Amino acid sequence: MISAIGIDIGGTNTVVGLVAGSVVLERRVMRTKGATDLDRYVKDIAHIIEAIALDYPHCNIVGIGIGAPNADAVSGHIYHPVNLPWKGEVPLTQLLTARTGLRSYLINDATAAVIGEMRFGNSSNLTDFMVITLGTGIGSGIVANGQLVSGIGGLAGELGHVIAVPGGRSCSCGRSGCLETYASATGLVNTAIERVRSGADTVLNSKPVMDITAEYVYNAALAGDAVAIGVFEHTGFILGTTLADVIALLAPQALVFMGGLAHAGDMLLVPVAQAADAGMLKALKGRVAFTRSVLPDSDAAILGAAQLVFDNR
Amino acid sequence: MISAIGIDIGGTNTVVGLVAGSVVLERRVMRTKGATDLDRYVKDIAHIIEAIALDYPHCNIVGIGIGAPNADAVSGHIYHPVNLPWKGEVPLTQLLTARTGLRSYLINDATAAVIGEMRFGNSSNLTDFMVITLGTGIGSGIVANGQLVSGIGGLAGELGHVIAVPGGRSCSCGRSGCLETYASATGLVNTAIERVRSGADTVLNSKPVMDITAEYVYNAALAGDAVAIGVFEHTGFILGTTLADVIALLAPQALVFMGGLAHAGDMLLVPVAQAADAGMLKALKGRVAFTRSVLPDSDAAILGAAQLVFDNR
Repeated sequence: MISAIGIDIGGTNTVVGLVAGSVVLERRVMRTKGATDLDRYVKDIAHIIEAIALDYPHCNIVGIGIGAPNADAVSGHIYHPVNLPWKGEVPLTQLLTARTGLRSYLINDATAAVIGEMRFGNSSNLTDFMVITLGTGIGSGIVANGQLVSGIGGLAGELGHVIAVPGGRSCSCGRSGCLETYASATGLVNTAIERVRSGADTVLNSKPVMDITAEYVYNAALAGDAVAIGVFEHTGFILGTTLADVIALLAPQALVFMGGLAHAGDMLLVPVAQAADAGMLKALKGRVAFTRSVLPDSDAAILGAAQLVFDNR
Repeated sequence: MISAIGIDIGGTNTVVGLVAGSVVLERRVMRTKGATDLDRYVKDIAHIIEAIALDYPHCNIVGIGIGAPNADAVSGHIYHPVNLPWKGEVPLTQLLTARTGLRSYLINDATAAVIGEMRFGNSSNLTDFMVITLGTGIGSGIVANGQLVSGIGGLAGELGHVIAVPGGRSCSCGRSGCLETYASATGLVNTAIERVRSGADTVLNSKPVMDITAEYVYNAALAGDAVAIGVFEHTGFILGTTLADVIALLAPQALVFMGGLAHAGDMLLVPVAQAADAGMLKALKGRVAFTRSVLPDSDAAILGAAQLVFDNR
């Protein structure tokens, strides 16, 4: 059976998947965070692929598709990846091909997710929409007229680096106030930590601040902690306000959210939709859908990245 | 000779053109500003079309294409036009057809300009670019993968209503801090007036503030007036900073400027490009062109609007 490896490289984890057609047969997770030794990281991916190949002898793996932040589809390099542990220019496809002998393709992680969502998700009937991944960072992919918007070198869709708060939090991209410093899982946790440090009366105080995760804040909010709820409202407000500007530019039919923080569902998406609606031009109010992807985590990106292999056969 | 009327409705003037193929044979200008009586305005357009038809007896005028702000291409209505003298919903195509007997088509003014620029301007070799019209307001049209990005009801491209200064100047759309309240010709004049009123030492003081125009500020800047130069720098900074966010989303090959304020050329575009470059992600720096359209004023929109007629024959 013709198969491909689809890899979703996130700031925290890397998920290596085995794809046949529209099915993800297998997902194996390794750590991205802290994997500063690039050669070792590539070797670890190669080992996972070998192990998968042994476990699925009927699968004929014909190539590797990778979705990663700051990816240049043409060169196959990752440039200045701000949420990954490597600096400068990373020739990832060349390194993986050298190690595995498999043809490798690279695209932006959010772009991979969009391709997966377009073909296998609940947006396949839409012509104009945007996929927004809320994880360690924020990525996005734009579809207009039924086609992916790539821009120069596939670099379009850097919603995470739209300035949401001028002069705001320092971003690893070297600038200040980028949306992902507020509205990613990391950004939400930092907002929670700020509130804990300012002496707020909250159950979030019951853990050392370094152990606070987005999931922990979510559970506190679910349990009715007003500060935790406020953290989600604040995060949703910043995200929704920024999205109102994006909607002014693109007038999309829908915004489809995925990634770890999207699991918060209405806790996040209700304030997002409220803030976006408040900031929207009258003519668009009520006409843009705010939804979550039906695909399991990482599967959209894994499926989309693997499609590169199938499409280039 | 098969011809069409192309109409460019701006906040200040309405230009009615006669188009045959790629040529604008005739342009007649009437006032939009102050034309609060909609019936009278439609009647005046119809009179101009009649007069043109009499002057060009060899032209067989087969329809009317209109570019206007806040246009809904599907309904042919203008919705809540913030820079036009009418309120609510304006069924412009129906009114013009009733008055002239000619089939009428409506699109967003910036969209019309993009179509004109794509087919007849200097961007015909580009696949991913944006046309930005700097006039009474700010409009824009986005081209991705060689196709116009329309969005819901053709409402995409409202760059003028991206929030540039949160909590800033009141916009006629009902919100605050919209880009066009700062970086349109009107916005630039308001910045100049603010500086005059704050007691700045400038030749701009030699006119009553109500008589200050963008052209007057431009001439003062050309003559070396530091305050006038500062007004252009400030305007360029706000526009360029906002465009850096747009570039993060779309990674376009070029931004093509047109409209009255684009005549300021480098006086405006140099600070725009500097601010955009400063706010751009490293991977995009130096890769986005900032240019002016080669088409004469209004011709891009007139040509683009007239194409609707030719394309629908």
